[in-house]
Amino acid sequence: MLDNLFAPKSVAVVGASEIPFKWGTYISSNILDGKFKGRYYPVNPNAQEVFGYTTYPSILDLPEAVDLVFITTPAKTVMQILKDCITKGIKNVVMITSGFSETGAEGIQMEKEIITLAKTHGLNIVGPNTMGIVNTHCSLYATGAITRPKPGGISIIAQSGNLGYQIMEWAESEDIGIAKFVGSGNEAVLKIEDYLKYFHSDSQTKVILMYVEGVDDGRVFVEIAKETSLHKPIIALKAGRTEVGSKAAASHTGAMAGSFSIFKGVMQQTGIVFAESPRELLTLSAAFDSFPLPKGNKIGIITLGGGWGVVTADECAERSLLIPQLPQSIKDELDKRLPPFWSKGNPVDLVGQPDFQLFKDAVEMMVAHEDFDAVIVLGIVGSKVFAYRAAEAVYNLGKMEKSVFDDFAKLLFIHQKEFLDRLIELMNRYKKPILPVSLSKMPGDETVHSDGGKYKVVIYDSPEEAVLCLSKMYQYYNYVEKRSRVYA
Amino acid sequence: MLDNLFAPKSVAVVGASEIPFKWGTYISSNILDGKFKGRYYPVNPNAQEVFGYTTYPSILDLPEAVDLVFITTPAKTVMQILKDCITKGIKNVVMITSGFSETGAEGIQMEKEIITLAKTHGLNIVGPNTMGIVNTHCSLYATGAITRPKPGGISIIAQSGNLGYQIMEWAESEDIGIAKFVGSGNEAVLKIEDYLKYFHSDSQTKVILMYVEGVDDGRVFVEIAKETSLHKPIIALKAGRTEVGSKAAASHTGAMAGSFSIFKGVMQQTGIVFAESPRELLTLSAAFDSFPLPKGNKIGIITLGGGWGVVTADECAERSLLIPQLPQSIKDELDKRLPPFWSKGNPVDLVGQPDFQLFKDAVEMMVAHEDFDAVIVLGIVGSKVFAYRAAEAVYNLGKMEKSVFDDFAKLLFIHQKEFLDRLIELMNRYKKPILPVSLSKMPGDETVHSDGGKYKVVIYDSPEEAVLCLSKMYQYYNYVEKRSRVYA
Repeated sequence: MLDNLFAPKSVAVVGASEIPFKWGTYISSNILDGKFKGRYYPVNPNAQEVFGYTTYPSILDLPEAVDLVFITTPAKTVMQILKDCITKGIKNVVMITSGFSETGAEGIQMEKEIITLAKTHGLNIVGPNTMGIVNTHCSLYATGAITRPKPGGISIIAQSGNLGYQIMEWAESEDIGIAKFVGSGNEAVLKIEDYLKYFHSDSQTKVILMYVEGVDDGRVFVEIAKETSLHKPIIALKAGRTEVGSKAAASHTGAMAGSFSIFKGVMQQTGIVFAESPRELLTLSAAFDSFPLPKGNKIGIITLGGGWGVVTADECAERSLLIPQLPQSIKDELDKRLPPFWSKGNPVDLVGQPDFQLFKDAVEMMVAHEDFDAVIVLGIVGSKVFAYRAAEAVYNLGKMEKSVFDDFAKLLFIHQKEFLDRLIELMNRYKKPILPVSLSKMPGDETVHSDGGKYKVVIYDSPEEAVLCLSKMYQYYNYVEKRSRVYA
Repeated sequence: MLDNLFAPKSVAVVGASEIPFKWGTYISSNILDGKFKGRYYPVNPNAQEVFGYTTYPSILDLPEAVDLVFITTPAKTVMQILKDCITKGIKNVVMITSGFSETGAEGIQMEKEIITLAKTHGLNIVGPNTMGIVNTHCSLYATGAITRPKPGGISIIAQSGNLGYQIMEWAESEDIGIAKFVGSGNEAVLKIEDYLKYFHSDSQTKVILMYVEGVDDGRVFVEIAKETSLHKPIIALKAGRTEVGSKAAASHTGAMAGSFSIFKGVMQQTGIVFAESPRELLTLSAAFDSFPLPKGNKIGIITLGGGWGVVTADECAERSLLIPQLPQSIKDELDKRLPPFWSKGNPVDLVGQPDFQLFKDAVEMMVAHEDFDAVIVLGIVGSKVFAYRAAEAVYNLGKMEKSVFDDFAKLLFIHQKEFLDRLIELMNRYKKPILPVSLSKMPGDETVHSDGGKYKVVIYDSPEEAVLCLSKMYQYYNYVEKRSRVYA
């Protein structure tokens, strides 16, 4: 139903401009500089051309009934533009324009009239008062603030433009792939549940990320969320959880933020995965988009340093994950390859041995064993920085040839890449997640490693993030399992 | 008492070498390439020179009684080296060497003998089984794994080398200043409470960061921590909080991790600030090292986007911080300068107005008012990225001269710097913390802004970090106030 809106072959921007600090400029330049794979038409009666494109005085003058129209002109101009869209046979509008229900009585009245018009004529309207939309897969970056994450499987519904922008910024800088984004704005016509329904059916969306302040029709929302989460994970941050936050939300979108205790109940019932901060929203979404789900809560830990193992064991226990005893067979195997004083337990402390073959073998022993549902690997990824800086100091002191140093550095990168490739191979073979936590990073280091296949490896900075992701993935796995059994 | 150990004028490294993958090589090359401001002597009977320095066959052959000796040679060689130190009149030793109490009965016996020798002759020994020490202020970077944070006010005591290394890595990459670091290793002689005592008296240490697995003598520890925290904040992560974590700790340092409930009681009694993860340890320490303490829990929020205000209000409420009504005087003032539909409440939503003078004035109105003890500023720092990328798109599309674009970019950086400078000025004037959260960063952007004076500005990536820091700083302020009143 919303395919032409999110994947248009042609777009028009009403209010398109080259003049700085105008939304018509932001949206147009972002669409064009973002290399949209479709036709672009600027609409502006007061300009001859915009960024080299001939302008059209009005929607009615366009050479085709475009798939999607962006409106950036003031609120009082919007009604006529919408009528023109209807006359022209245009079905989809993104209304960037603000000044409606969020500004008081007059705006509320205007918004009501728009809703009536849209319903009568079957117009799909995003907004008003929205940051815009993105579809990375057709290179449509049509938001007021520019950020251009790469194509991927996470689709975003944000009831706050800034928050949505922030999350895409993080995604871009951390190389996390995004499928689609919509800032839902005032939700005059299209509502959060409409986007949810669309992303459910959208083949490019693997995970749905939501920032929610309030929901108009709770019953419809629950029904759609329940149906969706059985097939795709929904990760949500509910804002307005507290009285003071709820008051702030009311003054933000004009909508009353629903009670959090009700919403929390809704989420448990619907299998929505609950994030506690904007950061967690993206962290969890990236994990769900990358790893196979753990089918149990028994965690194996491999570490290059004792302290990290302790911290991670604590985190697991505090999130109801189990750290089983190390099986005798693995103990025997590792006994042959580690110094006599090694930990002999789970966490497996590899006591800093710089041996990538041992690292790979140890991970496989753990992931292959039925006693473990998932493996966390601490410090192996990133250990190259230790070796690199040690060699660099020796080189700086004049005791290593430049070519030797360069070759060594190259080798370190190759070892790390091979190790990450092996993790993907093992995830494919055993259908269990393996989460690496890196001690340190170098410029140019990946944050997500992919071989282009089904599973990817997210590289975490800190153990608590890996543990959080595992615990929420297991919780979701359980929900889906239980629901599937009921329906079977 | 430990001045010569932590700020030596001369050091010797026993086992110094140029051969790759040896601790004597790591420590020596790190000291030399780190540009230690003191004299360095390699000790090694089997080499003529190390990195251009003539070696000495033994400690006894050194031209002076050095302030500090690093021992990197195998465990069985250590006893004789210590005896040589005593003969030579050397008082301070960092024992990198492992293979003692962490490896079993034989190691425990050797460690006991070392303790007896040290106590008899007043030897200060760090370790054994330690990552090393750092003193940025004399450029002594003497750890096995190289990381070189810049000089600053945070001193670190870590009962895990890896964890300490990790935290210094983060500090280095985020430009957070460190004073001193010690990996306490097996704590055969010098214990966590000795370092605490020393850092208490050390003028370069403003904040003490601790990673704790266990404490030998709880009573002494409590006494010293109580005395110290009255003058300097202590931020601690207690590992081995859970049964499984405690077991992992036992196999790590050989020490029994103390019960967490006891330790938690100790921390409340001593005013130690409790971190929940390695990341929080550094985040909290940087805040305590940078901002004035809030003298109350009433928070003013200024935001460039509504959603962020909502999220931050929620976070505040969940951490017992108050979001008071906006005072009428500020309402009246802002009414003159904002569009009529602005939020008229706290959080103050500046509705995206790109006006740096308004930003500065709004922050001052809030921080100057007695109704607020601290201010969080959302999205102003980092908003330059929005403007930069918007201009960049127009430039890419051929509609802006290169020189205009460059000048514009320069101006954006200047505006942001001026804004940050103003925050410091206001903190100095009102003695209240102002915490900015950035929407986005560009390469080369600061994470800590300083004018060289007493207060600095840490720029947060996400609102929950700023709120966490404020709540813990207020909690610590309260503790110190209450204790001070008791003693007054």
